[in-house]
Amino acid sequence: MIDSTRKDALDALDATRAPALRSWIESANDSSSDFPIQNLPFGIFSDEANPSPRAGVAIGDWIVDLDVLHRARLIECEPVFARPALNAFVALGVERWRSVRIQLSALLASGSETIKADAALRPRALVPRGSATLHLPVDIPGYTDFYSSKEHATNVGSMFRDPKHALLPNWTEMPIGYNGRASSVIVSGTPVRRPRGQIKLPDQDRPVFAACRKLDIELETGFIVGAGNALGQPIGCDQAESHIFGMVLLNDWSARDIQQWEYVPLGPFNAKGFATTISPWIVTLDALEPFRTSSPKQDPEPLAYLRHTGDHAFDITLHAHLRPEHADSATKLATTHFKLMYWTMAQQLAHHTVAGCNTRVGDLMGSGTISGPTPDSCGSLLEMTWNGQRPIALEGGGERRFIEDGDELTLTGWCQGDGYRVGFGECAGVILPALQVGE
Amino acid sequence: MIDSTRKDALDALDATRAPALRSWIESANDSSSDFPIQNLPFGIFSDEANPSPRAGVAIGDWIVDLDVLHRARLIECEPVFARPALNAFVALGVERWRSVRIQLSALLASGSETIKADAALRPRALVPRGSATLHLPVDIPGYTDFYSSKEHATNVGSMFRDPKHALLPNWTEMPIGYNGRASSVIVSGTPVRRPRGQIKLPDQDRPVFAACRKLDIELETGFIVGAGNALGQPIGCDQAESHIFGMVLLNDWSARDIQQWEYVPLGPFNAKGFATTISPWIVTLDALEPFRTSSPKQDPEPLAYLRHTGDHAFDITLHAHLRPEHADSATKLATTHFKLMYWTMAQQLAHHTVAGCNTRVGDLMGSGTISGPTPDSCGSLLEMTWNGQRPIALEGGGERRFIEDGDELTLTGWCQGDGYRVGFGECAGVILPALQVGE
Repeated sequence: MIDSTRKDALDALDATRAPALRSWIESANDSSSDFPIQNLPFGIFSDEANPSPRAGVAIGDWIVDLDVLHRARLIECEPVFARPALNAFVALGVERWRSVRIQLSALLASGSETIKADAALRPRALVPRGSATLHLPVDIPGYTDFYSSKEHATNVGSMFRDPKHALLPNWTEMPIGYNGRASSVIVSGTPVRRPRGQIKLPDQDRPVFAACRKLDIELETGFIVGAGNALGQPIGCDQAESHIFGMVLLNDWSARDIQQWEYVPLGPFNAKGFATTISPWIVTLDALEPFRTSSPKQDPEPLAYLRHTGDHAFDITLHAHLRPEHADSATKLATTHFKLMYWTMAQQLAHHTVAGCNTRVGDLMGSGTISGPTPDSCGSLLEMTWNGQRPIALEGGGERRFIEDGDELTLTGWCQGDGYRVGFGECAGVILPALQVGE
Repeated sequence: MIDSTRKDALDALDATRAPALRSWIESANDSSSDFPIQNLPFGIFSDEANPSPRAGVAIGDWIVDLDVLHRARLIECEPVFARPALNAFVALGVERWRSVRIQLSALLASGSETIKADAALRPRALVPRGSATLHLPVDIPGYTDFYSSKEHATNVGSMFRDPKHALLPNWTEMPIGYNGRASSVIVSGTPVRRPRGQIKLPDQDRPVFAACRKLDIELETGFIVGAGNALGQPIGCDQAESHIFGMVLLNDWSARDIQQWEYVPLGPFNAKGFATTISPWIVTLDALEPFRTSSPKQDPEPLAYLRHTGDHAFDITLHAHLRPEHADSATKLATTHFKLMYWTMAQQLAHHTVAGCNTRVGDLMGSGTISGPTPDSCGSLLEMTWNGQRPIALEGGGERRFIEDGDELTLTGWCQGDGYRVGFGECAGVILPALQVGE
């Protein structure tokens, strides 16, 4: 039984994502905007007028300055917005994220005059998104990357191990993952220096030290931990989603040639540690809720600690584009779907903590490369070109086996609603040439 | 040419580690104390009189309260000591660590009356070590664990892969490492809950979910990064030591049965992420300098980015002890030596950053299990008992293949000087029983 206060709160939350809801901010009502009033993702921004990074919410072509609204007493919340990371807000928990969402939705909905009609407040509360600098939205104490697409794991296993036993026996029993490097997680738009490292060429006895020749993307999503767990106290699978603040796009840049030589027996290290890019806006699970859907059937049925009831995937369509330096247009490399993932975020978090590992507010957990059944639904060039054997033709000429210097790689993704989409914005990066000897 | 100011500073530094130096704190002059005046390791402590964690230095049976000395204007330094972690102090850089060391040495040396004779100051400046609570000395933004003992890698490779090709071909080319889980690094004395997880028994098709049956230690040292590097800007091998603040003992608790099933292809995860214990006192490289020594010859000669001149090992003897619950005495499991390590800390840091990965103040880098050529010089029970096949007899009766509930495991280590030792204190933990079903 739901008591009436609780029911009122859920009704108010549902109202924030009603397909018919419109905003008085016109650009938010464009059906191709990633940031309609149904979304309201959180991020950290600064601008020329105020170079202090602070919390904001994206809507249409604008950013709502949460600290300005809070100081104007239009948002009831602890004073957590005038900070360079969202962690203090995230740490307040799901009830507070929801109440801020509901308050913002009311202020931004068509018909509300509170901000719209306040000539003094409005220009301070709304910053043009195009003129703002976006920062890493959270301090990330820990970064874990999973490997939860069956198609991706099968492709990689076929290529580098044994096509007949591409999927290792543990893969269908647990969401395989590894600890990534949190220090080098960067926000979309930050250039990425081509890494150098040890590469073992097949015709040579010893490795050479050289710039990566097989630089790749990994198209992923990531989730941000909202409420951690204490050391030794696992999170149950059915409770796991309540520990998740929201999702981002994630590009787990990978140096395939470095990776192939270094990864046995302890996993990828320098091949991944040079950069991981995330999109700047964290889309809350509350915004994604209307797009909840089922996952692929799991066979065998997972062990008890990995079982959950109901649906735990979200219907997010994802794209990867490549634009060469000086090119006018980008080539779409692939389109894929988050709902294809074999292991769910809830299972990932339950598995991560089952042996006792603690998680913390702001932890980032990557999905692993998201691949579908065809080359143009794969999340890495490694798979799309089958380790460089089948180059991709670029619009405007040229081809790619792997990433070249000057290329800009961009991930996008959204959930398609009826007349609107709940999107993630861009997760992009341009590749700079490797350092030269002596640099 | 060294200018005279620089020479004076180096002379003052040398004086802090002169073997003949004695302190007016008598317990520091005991030749079996880990904390003579030549050591002066940094840590974070609190006590009943003042429960705020703050910076201190261990000497004999006492802790010097650095904030008290700073407020009394006896230490010239930025106000960084009244904090629950050393990061702000560490971030000041090597010249400041040195100057604080030199000032402390002068205040604590025999003949100095400044603290000794100040009846009001002395009881506030010196806290009995036995009555203090020790905390994690730094906030650890990133934890990396290497695998740099040739004997250990050979033993593990023989046991789990192929005895004929025990050492993988990449091992002699680079210091193999992986990202560990920083959130579960705990300070000595914190109990460790036996982890649960997936275990694949050889006679069954599918894994079971169970408490770890092969719980193990890994006897390691760790170093704390003092000055990080920017993303994309590697640290050269000959500059690497100037980025290191100091060293600790490290026990990389390992669930061997969980590890064996989960580790392919991305490395250890839940088998390691439940706890990593470090000793509370960070011994600076300045204190270790008199014990600098050579490393094993590297064959083949490493690639250029891993070459350095001079000696980069330290002559640290290390011990592991096990004391069963309710037992009066501990059994020594092994004695080994840090100088046996094939790859140096400088090489580890150069390799970690060569592809562009950034490091940060407080990052922890584990050496990997330190093993010698014999079972009683190995750093893990896995090796000492050869995966449980050759149990170790305990003093007072009983035997061990792996760790049992209630066992206390303790690592110790020191450099032996002439009439004194520069030691690390203890890195200890007691094993609590696994959570029961439903807990």
